[in-house]
Amino acid sequence: MKKVAIIMGSDSDLPVVKKAAEELAGFGVPYEMHIMSAHRSPEAAHAFAASAKDNGFGVIIAAAGMAAHLAGVLAASTTLPVIGIPMKSAALDGLDALLATVMMPSGIPVATVAIDGAKNAAVLAVQMLALSEPTLADKLAERKREMAAAVAEKDRLLNQE
Amino acid sequence: MKKVAIIMGSDSDLPVVKKAAEELAGFGVPYEMHIMSAHRSPEAAHAFAASAKDNGFGVIIAAAGMAAHLAGVLAASTTLPVIGIPMKSAALDGLDALLATVMMPSGIPVATVAIDGAKNAAVLAVQMLALSEPTLADKLAERKREMAAAVAEKDRLLNQE
Amino acid sequence: MKKVAIIMGSDSDLPVVKKAAEELAGFGVPYEMHIMSAHRSPEAAHAFAASAKDNGFGVIIAAAGMAAHLAGVLAASTTLPVIGIPMKSAALDGLDALLATVMMPSGIPVATVAIDGAKNAAVLAVQMLALSEPTLADKLAERKREMAAAVAEKDRLLNQE
Amino acid sequence: MKKVAIIMGSDSDLPVVKKAAEELAGFGVPYEMHIMSAHRSPEAAHAFAASAKDNGFGVIIAAAGMAAHLAGVLAASTTLPVIGIPMKSAALDGLDALLATVMMPSGIPVATVAIDGAKNAAVLAVQMLALSEPTLADKLAERKREMAAAVAEKDRLLNQE
Amino acid sequence: MKKVAIIMGSDSDLPVVKKAAEELAGFGVPYEMHIMSAHRSPEAAHAFAASAKDNGFGVIIAAAGMAAHLAGVLAASTTLPVIGIPMKSAALDGLDALLATVMMPSGIPVATVAIDGAKNAAVLAVQMLALSEPTLADKLAERKREMAAAVAEKDRLLNQE
Amino acid sequence: MKKVAIIMGSDSDLPVVKKAAEELAGFGVPYEMHIMSAHRSPEAAHAFAASAKDNGFGVIIAAAGMAAHLAGVLAASTTLPVIGIPMKSAALDGLDALLATVMMPSGIPVATVAIDGAKNAAVLAVQMLALSEPTLADKLAERKREMAAAVAEKDRLLNQE
Amino acid sequence: MKKVAIIMGSDSDLPVVKKAAEELAGFGVPYEMHIMSAHRSPEAAHAFAASAKDNGFGVIIAAAGMAAHLAGVLAASTTLPVIGIPMKSAALDGLDALLATVMMPSGIPVATVAIDGAKNAAVLAVQMLALSEPTLADKLAERKREMAAAVAEKDRLLNQE
Amino acid sequence: MKKVAIIMGSDSDLPVVKKAAEELAGFGVPYEMHIMSAHRSPEAAHAFAASAKDNGFGVIIAAAGMAAHLAGVLAASTTLPVIGIPMKSAALDGLDALLATVMMPSGIPVATVAIDGAKNAAVLAVQMLALSEPTLADKLAERKREMAAAVAEKDRLLNQE
Repeated sequence: MKKVAIIMGSDSDLPVVKKAAEELAGFGVPYEMHIMSAHRSPEAAHAFAASAKDNGFGVIIAAAGMAAHLAGVLAASTTLPVIGIPMKSAALDGLDALLATVMMPSGIPVATVAIDGAKNAAVLAVQMLALSEPTLADKLAERKREMAAAVAEKDRLLNQE
Repeated sequence: MKKVAIIMGSDSDLPVVKKAAEELAGFGVPYEMHIMSAHRSPEAAHAFAASAKDNGFGVIIAAAGMAAHLAGVLAASTTLPVIGIPMKSAALDGLDALLATVMMPSGIPVATVAIDGAKNAAVLAVQMLALSEPTLADKLAERKREMAAAVAEKDRLLNQE
Repeated sequence: MKKVAIIMGSDSDLPVVKKAAEELAGFGVPYEMHIMSAHRSPEAAHAFAASAKDNGFGVIIAAAGMAAHLAGVLAASTTLPVIGIPMKSAALDGLDALLATVMMPSGIPVATVAIDGAKNAAVLAVQMLALSEPTLADKLAERKREMAAAVAEKDRLLNQE
Repeated sequence: MKKVAIIMGSDSDLPVVKKAAEELAGFGVPYEMHIMSAHRSPEAAHAFAASAKDNGFGVIIAAAGMAAHLAGVLAASTTLPVIGIPMKSAALDGLDALLATVMMPSGIPVATVAIDGAKNAAVLAVQMLALSEPTLADKLAERKREMAAAVAEKDRLLNQE
Repeated sequence: MKKVAIIMGSDSDLPVVKKAAEELAGFGVPYEMHIMSAHRSPEAAHAFAASAKDNGFGVIIAAAGMAAHLAGVLAASTTLPVIGIPMKSAALDGLDALLATVMMPSGIPVATVAIDGAKNAAVLAVQMLALSEPTLADKLAERKREMAAAVAEKDRLLNQE
Repeated sequence: MKKVAIIMGSDSDLPVVKKAAEELAGFGVPYEMHIMSAHRSPEAAHAFAASAKDNGFGVIIAAAGMAAHLAGVLAASTTLPVIGIPMKSAALDGLDALLATVMMPSGIPVATVAIDGAKNAAVLAVQMLALSEPTLADKLAERKREMAAAVAEKDRLLNQE
Repeated sequence: MKKVAIIMGSDSDLPVVKKAAEELAGFGVPYEMHIMSAHRSPEAAHAFAASAKDNGFGVIIAAAGMAAHLAGVLAASTTLPVIGIPMKSAALDGLDALLATVMMPSGIPVATVAIDGAKNAAVLAVQMLALSEPTLADKLAERKREMAAAVAEKDRLLNQE
Repeated sequence: MKKVAIIMGSDSDLPVVKKAAEELAGFGVPYEMHIMSAHRSPEAAHAFAASAKDNGFGVIIAAAGMAAHLAGVLAASTTLPVIGIPMKSAALDGLDALLATVMMPSGIPVATVAIDGAKNAAVLAVQMLALSEPTLADKLAERKREMAAAVAEKDRLLNQE
């Protein structure tokens, strides 16, 4: 199975981003997690993206805040789908990162999820990989049923009180 | 090859959304284009999404404006990856559709592209399908080289004047 | 008297949403409170809305955050008036939920109240029911007098200090 | 049947607001349309709202732009449900009117629809009146079926081309 | 000397609004402070504004949050200058109150100060009264000199450390 | 009677700003209109403000767009009340000018009116001058009656059609 | 004298960006103008920035719209000062480009000017070069005097009419 | 070597702004730090800027919040490059200061960095001075290598755990 790369711009993003790793682990999807910066280590970021496909990766998840260029910079150097997680930081409540991640120019998309949406980035990566991994598709379907059941159970508990 | 579904909430979205269809056609990716509304024809939308995987679709692209629920509603009923295109409408410059598309709750991601970003939605869909279609991956790489060459040529022309 | 349905997208919404229940109880209006998700349990939400009128409900109140589709999804499946409460969540201060709730396309309105405005959602529901329940109209008029008197009393206390 | 009052802050709002009147007429709901200003004719506005219930009105629709106080001012003087239409004006794309209409303090709700959402304001008023007018409820259900059929027909035409 | 009225929409505004009172006291300007609500006690608010000039007031300061109609409602019923203080509340960081206060339609201005800008509202009121009270003008000039001196002193201390 | 100074940052502001002049003329209030820039002619702006009181001015109106510093810069150099008109310019719909005008720090208020609200700036200036000019107060009261009558007449015409 | 590089992300930016070139020419500052894309030709952009200092450039001006990464990507690969011009594009009025340009993480600044502020980008570049080119400093001082005189002349003409 | 002036509008800005001083010290760049207010001590600010070049300064850094005029006011009175730091304050999350700093009119640029971006303001100042100080250019290059190495080391540690 292809691996998922989880790249974050700073180790301060780890508490949020590790939820993506946990979700991938829950689906049994192999991943690597790296710290790389579009601005502080641009050559490493470029080199990683340019060789990611050959190195067995299928999807890249990139998390960054503020003028969040990381996902876009990686997407510029690979043909793999890149998922962007806009990180909330000290000012502007994540709106800066959201716009810097999602408003990509024609030709270079970034598949953007919600602000701090690390878990959903992982689910989206699994959905992409599931296109050629039927067992993942089955797990996603099972997860959907579990979510519906969990909501129903919470509703039952609420009305039992 | 799996098909791509392009769903729009209203036929007024067609002038923008058809760029997604043209892009898919350029890559030789089969697609269907449909008009369905999360609000006006919710049962059709649900039925389409629930059976999309069995009907040979691999990716769903959904375009909607204002309180843009279409992508999210489709994503709720399928395990396929759903790409959301927030459409700019008469007020608020597309910010409403962007937030209503991208800020999905945990468990149900929508891969959001830029406001009116129909072409990028198609490129992203091709990137997803390319995970299991090597010829698409080759075409994407070729497209990347062409884009770089086109920019270089424009730079050459600018400096030739 | 018709019942009011109070639906929330997640049990984490309960501390805010229960104020709607308390307000309805204060008016002697019967209600049911449920947890249902537009995204995680879409079929339950659809089924509830589609049968709400036949099950004795007169108004539906729906509270959700982020890309808040719940009110719109319920409104798509019922002819009852649906009141939407946009919930503030971790990012964007509730603006995402507000726009996702209020900017509904033509034909499917959601009667939107303020961010986290659970009490007002209940008052609005009572105003709707009061159209055919004269005793509720009397209670609303009484409540209006009490509010004015409470403000006047606070003013008196302020100037007494 | 109770009447609907359609109040606008300025005659410049008429081209948008008259869609509410047309929609009510389509449902056979009686209405009156008036120009009143929260700021320029506050006493007329107060007097209208205070006597609206006794004058046979069941719902008030209020449309205003900028610091849109009209709906809130009317709501302060009546126990009838008040529906607010935030009007887009020269600056800020309607965001000012939206916030000034929807963010009402506790106790005095305004049922807010989308920016320039005059038609939806009328549909919402009909939904409220339908709580005690079964024929209106039937018309709303019929309208819902027509909307779904119209979307399906547009989809058929799109795929016929 | 004419009095200044300080009106707030809720006693929860008092901790911020009392800074206006303190500032007026510092200038020796007489004032009254009242709690009145545009929505919960509209008749009291109207009556106060309509008679404020005859009751010896020269300027009205009004503080309110959310869909902050108080200043506009008072301005509608008086020819005195009305100063609006938009109050920050639980959501949207005061932007709602700012727009609802400042974006007044033609003919009925509200002199708006910064979000939570109670002290500046008082200074502005003093500036207005100073037009016909030379001693106030002198105090304002003195205050300006003191402010400049205080900044210079802080600069001196910073560079002394 | 004291004069009103109308200052604009650029002659491109004239089409909007001259409405302030027309309004003042309608009230019989003397005024001067000047072009001065906080950034391009800061010394002229400072000199004007510093001597405005001695030169017979009672109120200063300042109109500027983008990072609209003009009103604040004038206010820094005078004890007269300064009214700021935030001008809408090519980007951001006037929000930049609004925030740069209204969010003044403690001690130096700017009485801010709506974006492009030149007429209201004049009315506000008249209200200030009216504190010591009873004939202006009478004219303001008359204007208020005329506005109410004009609204009533428009309502009559609407319902006569 | 060191050269200024003017880089734009797309030839569609040329009508705005060429104002920077005209301004530099007016100051007699040598420049080159290039089209390069952070996303479509990332290697060319990186190579240009990495060698810009050795190639005789002193300042880089970068103009881009939407998720405007160009300035940040260039700044990542050079120690020269990089000036960013956020370009207004079809949606969001330039706010996306502004935030994506200015909110750079610690260590890699971009000197951001106003949306579409091409002329100011050039003036800022001249100010930087003037630190070691006294003739440029003289020209800047002369330009400042001319601007003040031009404003004064416009004021004179306005009051002559 | 030319000095850098670090000007802040209020001593409450010191905890953020001193990071600029520390960064300059790390590069061995001489600086002075001052408190001056565009609004409370405008003459001191003007005098400082007008003589800064003659007093040996090469760059001015200005930090201010709310309607942040300080950088613009200084830029109006000098031909030196002025770097603006928009400070986050109690409301609006720094958006007010950002727009008031960056949206400068044609002719008077302010080189704006991120909200609270004091360290980057210093780095930008060093980049400007490095144009004529080769040792600073070397230090900047060394700093860039250190940043890349630090990111790589963090990545190594993350994957070692």
